[in-house]
Amino acid sequence: MIATAIVGCNGYTGQETLDRVLAHPELEVVSLGSDSLAGRGASALDVRLNGSLPAFVPNEAALASGAEVVFLCLDNPKAAAVAPPDGAVVVDLSAAHRLADEAQALEWYGVAPGGWSYGLPELYPPAGRLIANPGCYATAALLALGPLADVVDPASVVVDAKSGVSGAGRSLKPSSHAGFVLENLSPYAVGAHRHAPEIAQQLGFPVCFVPHLLPVRRGLLATCYLRTDEDVRGLLEAAYETSPVVRVLPDGATPELSRVQGTDAAEIGVFEDRATGTAIVICAVDNLGKGAAGQAVQNANVALGLDETLGLRLAGVLV
Amino acid sequence: MIATAIVGCNGYTGQETLDRVLAHPELEVVSLGSDSLAGRGASALDVRLNGSLPAFVPNEAALASGAEVVFLCLDNPKAAAVAPPDGAVVVDLSAAHRLADEAQALEWYGVAPGGWSYGLPELYPPAGRLIANPGCYATAALLALGPLADVVDPASVVVDAKSGVSGAGRSLKPSSHAGFVLENLSPYAVGAHRHAPEIAQQLGFPVCFVPHLLPVRRGLLATCYLRTDEDVRGLLEAAYETSPVVRVLPDGATPELSRVQGTDAAEIGVFEDRATGTAIVICAVDNLGKGAAGQAVQNANVALGLDETLGLRLAGVLV
Amino acid sequence: MIATAIVGCNGYTGQETLDRVLAHPELEVVSLGSDSLAGRGASALDVRLNGSLPAFVPNEAALASGAEVVFLCLDNPKAAAVAPPDGAVVVDLSAAHRLADEAQALEWYGVAPGGWSYGLPELYPPAGRLIANPGCYATAALLALGPLADVVDPASVVVDAKSGVSGAGRSLKPSSHAGFVLENLSPYAVGAHRHAPEIAQQLGFPVCFVPHLLPVRRGLLATCYLRTDEDVRGLLEAAYETSPVVRVLPDGATPELSRVQGTDAAEIGVFEDRATGTAIVICAVDNLGKGAAGQAVQNANVALGLDETLGLRLAGVLV
Amino acid sequence: MIATAIVGCNGYTGQETLDRVLAHPELEVVSLGSDSLAGRGASALDVRLNGSLPAFVPNEAALASGAEVVFLCLDNPKAAAVAPPDGAVVVDLSAAHRLADEAQALEWYGVAPGGWSYGLPELYPPAGRLIANPGCYATAALLALGPLADVVDPASVVVDAKSGVSGAGRSLKPSSHAGFVLENLSPYAVGAHRHAPEIAQQLGFPVCFVPHLLPVRRGLLATCYLRTDEDVRGLLEAAYETSPVVRVLPDGATPELSRVQGTDAAEIGVFEDRATGTAIVICAVDNLGKGAAGQAVQNANVALGLDETLGLRLAGVLV
Repeated sequence: MIATAIVGCNGYTGQETLDRVLAHPELEVVSLGSDSLAGRGASALDVRLNGSLPAFVPNEAALASGAEVVFLCLDNPKAAAVAPPDGAVVVDLSAAHRLADEAQALEWYGVAPGGWSYGLPELYPPAGRLIANPGCYATAALLALGPLADVVDPASVVVDAKSGVSGAGRSLKPSSHAGFVLENLSPYAVGAHRHAPEIAQQLGFPVCFVPHLLPVRRGLLATCYLRTDEDVRGLLEAAYETSPVVRVLPDGATPELSRVQGTDAAEIGVFEDRATGTAIVICAVDNLGKGAAGQAVQNANVALGLDETLGLRLAGVLV
Repeated sequence: MIATAIVGCNGYTGQETLDRVLAHPELEVVSLGSDSLAGRGASALDVRLNGSLPAFVPNEAALASGAEVVFLCLDNPKAAAVAPPDGAVVVDLSAAHRLADEAQALEWYGVAPGGWSYGLPELYPPAGRLIANPGCYATAALLALGPLADVVDPASVVVDAKSGVSGAGRSLKPSSHAGFVLENLSPYAVGAHRHAPEIAQQLGFPVCFVPHLLPVRRGLLATCYLRTDEDVRGLLEAAYETSPVVRVLPDGATPELSRVQGTDAAEIGVFEDRATGTAIVICAVDNLGKGAAGQAVQNANVALGLDETLGLRLAGVLV
Repeated sequence: MIATAIVGCNGYTGQETLDRVLAHPELEVVSLGSDSLAGRGASALDVRLNGSLPAFVPNEAALASGAEVVFLCLDNPKAAAVAPPDGAVVVDLSAAHRLADEAQALEWYGVAPGGWSYGLPELYPPAGRLIANPGCYATAALLALGPLADVVDPASVVVDAKSGVSGAGRSLKPSSHAGFVLENLSPYAVGAHRHAPEIAQQLGFPVCFVPHLLPVRRGLLATCYLRTDEDVRGLLEAAYETSPVVRVLPDGATPELSRVQGTDAAEIGVFEDRATGTAIVICAVDNLGKGAAGQAVQNANVALGLDETLGLRLAGVLV
Repeated sequence: MIATAIVGCNGYTGQETLDRVLAHPELEVVSLGSDSLAGRGASALDVRLNGSLPAFVPNEAALASGAEVVFLCLDNPKAAAVAPPDGAVVVDLSAAHRLADEAQALEWYGVAPGGWSYGLPELYPPAGRLIANPGCYATAALLALGPLADVVDPASVVVDAKSGVSGAGRSLKPSSHAGFVLENLSPYAVGAHRHAPEIAQQLGFPVCFVPHLLPVRRGLLATCYLRTDEDVRGLLEAAYETSPVVRVLPDGATPELSRVQGTDAAEIGVFEDRATGTAIVICAVDNLGKGAAGQAVQNANVALGLDETLGLRLAGVLV
């Protein structure tokens, strides 16, 4: 068993990562870090967690636990400040280490790039032991657009994305208040969202990206518009033909949040607009699954040389 | 008082139209048509409606009631089959009479154009007494794009729209089942929605339009992407400067469903994408308000030479 | 026109009270208090509010504005600390002044009773110029049970209540986070909610009361169970026969949140359990309407000798 | 492997039962019945189901498939009409065979009792090979009240229950339309719900039971009120001490729908009302899990002499 630490267990991504690690046949939890829960037992996080898990320790202690795999589930400033333990595979679920360009990294996250490798296994497998896990929006946009990057007219690309509220984390803010979210749909950060440079970095060109907050708990759908003369469906099917995680749906079928919620899978639908010939590629993921914790465990599996699906939830409830 | 009949009271649009007519100082209900409720009192539709209203009669009887204003709140085939009463102002809330091109009208609605006038008062005021009321998606898209039609690069336009479930009407279908709608977001009719030719007809060129079903009861948001060298904000502010119905929000402000729900108002937000220079125009309406019943009453007001806001709900609950 | 001040405009109840006052033909806003918005114009609260309203001032200044009617829309500790201006009609929408028993008032709210009059117009009209506005849960429970208090077996009464999230206010707390609220139903304060003594005070005996948090924005439903030999329906119909606000539904009809949302009306349904003979009285209100701001304005109307419905929203959207 | 047939795959319970059977190490699907899907492959039900499953056959053919275990996922009239195959373990997820009293069975379901055994494994283990699976409401009410049946004052018991919309099945009806369900809470069948006699049959006395429709996709919470002099917590903890399915929460903890959704587990919270001494027992289940498909598989496991948790989902997503 591979000793594993989770740093920052109290947020959504920490809790979900723990969920996958507990289901993982090769990973073993040796340290659970949470500054707010330090000193308490695992059941303080969820009443279903039992006494066989270690009690929570401060995040610093979890980092120093000697674990071979460390999941960083911290906010951006805290993750940026972490000195990764020597020799460990470290997956950072925050955005702190995603941008390789120094100016961009400093502008958006106030941190200089430090040799972290962006890891989206199907398209950009992680290349080292320090792995920057993609953002949820970037994951969906890149799964839809990555295989098309070389053939698309860059100026034509629009990514209209919609995410459930858990994508904004568990911290309290007015835009996550249920009185604001329910019966609403809220575009935000219009014109300048921090996931835009991440998408641009991987595609090689900037795209127009607008996120919207949905009144759902979890799930994210990116509707991507683009123009190309190439066979969009063929390129996407080829890219994911052998993937156990990403499914290109048959002609006419649309992705549904309900089929990916609670899972680490992704669904892609491919369409052509009859009136204008625009290609429409729609990708659905669970923002906390393939968009965060599931992908983090998948990245760790790749870095460790394990089967990439170990610990992942790929079969959700059918309904 | 102007004698008014509502034909097809039992659907969402009929009920909402009645709501506006009851609040209208110049219109008086003389006939309420509903084949399913015929013979029953108004309280059969809603327990709050009292005995001063006429009982429901069959739709044919409501059409023949001699009303000076008739609102057709029927499905497309039934509306297409209606012979409009002589001399009356007739507003058709269905899609049956929206397309002026014969081939298009026959293809999408199976009916030949018959001299109906498309009426969206701020941009395309109705020109006769037979008025085709715009679709909810078309209303939002046209409010955002209409004032820009002459300056935009047509090939660049994308309309990504999201509507509450009442936009699909009260009839029972799997996609309106709450078990499907809740915690979901469902793109539908991707590549070929029937509101697309309606938008194209008014703009003068086709656009790429994709609708999504939101887990909200009412409210519609259209996020429109386009490229132009002109001043998008200036053109939109000029177009709606004196409008009591359409509000262009100040720089940086985003439309919210919650501010237009239950009202007949519209909100427009204007943005520019920092990375690509794409203009983003977002329009929010209540699909049953400005997107249906409110606009129908507004169109009738225009045709009757009344103040266009009579009967409209323009101030919603603040929260 | 009667000079009116609203103290604490930035919360849900303040905003909703402003909404009613703006629609009130006899009240005129002379001062808008908000410590967080002080110095900014009314549009800072809602983009729809225009320049004819006074800018926000600190709450202390609003209290000292010389208004003839003052609505206190503060949290409990702040409301408890207010010295009501001489001569003004003051309606406190907080819970600070609801309990007349000194021990209870001190235990639950840390404040001694100070001559405030509990005001629920249909059952307990306010008796002075200092009015304690009832809680939302207490309003629904008392409308259902008040007319039955003398004939019911006290030990048999159970009040199972469910409220939308706006009932918990706009302040940020984990239980109002949309990630907690959506797709959930959460019983809370089970066994000891602070509205219980308020209900007991008015009924004259304690009842078992359990509140639940609903995944809806607004609306509250109280399902009340009781045993009595008297005619429950007859007593309730007699109590509300002439009320423009409270409607007892016909036999077999159930209250719906959707019919009272956005309004200041209440609906009551009356049933008998076939198996056990238990009477079931169900009351629906909008927690921010009859459960807060609407009732506050209604209380002010009573204290001022005006028609009690002035400024109230009694006809909601039909759908 | 034990040959298994599912009859009526196209509804929620059929689909969810298939989900458990696919995860079951001892059951093997040999026949999938669905009259509406007959002739089509498994992916017609869900795009995630692959070609290794048999194609759908008519329900009659599935019944005659020779399976050793048959799950009946039909509506009540169709289930009542089924002749159970000789020798097979048959679990009926409908209500047709739940009532043992002939008069009651005929009144509520129009069918005479036929030797079926009511099976709720923790309290009333199935006694034969023909098993009537409990209703979702009855499951939650009985888990809360069953262990207390001998010590409670029957006249004091009230069950106020709230269910997600999937509890009403996938068939189309006005009360399942999302335009009705969203932002609503709807009490229904008040005074006479068909689960009431089922609860009474198992407890030995009638109780007052009122169901409400929640705006959530799945999950059910029953808030039960009762009076007794005995130790409610002690009795419930003793009843479920060794259960892998039912968890009695620690003092002060409330059940949450979010912790049981998508699982076959149940949570019970125990409280005492401070003002009246009433005991409050709250039980949460997933209406499609422990309330339907999960319990059906659990019942089959018991009847087959297997570990009762095989195939069950007991660990849900933590968030």
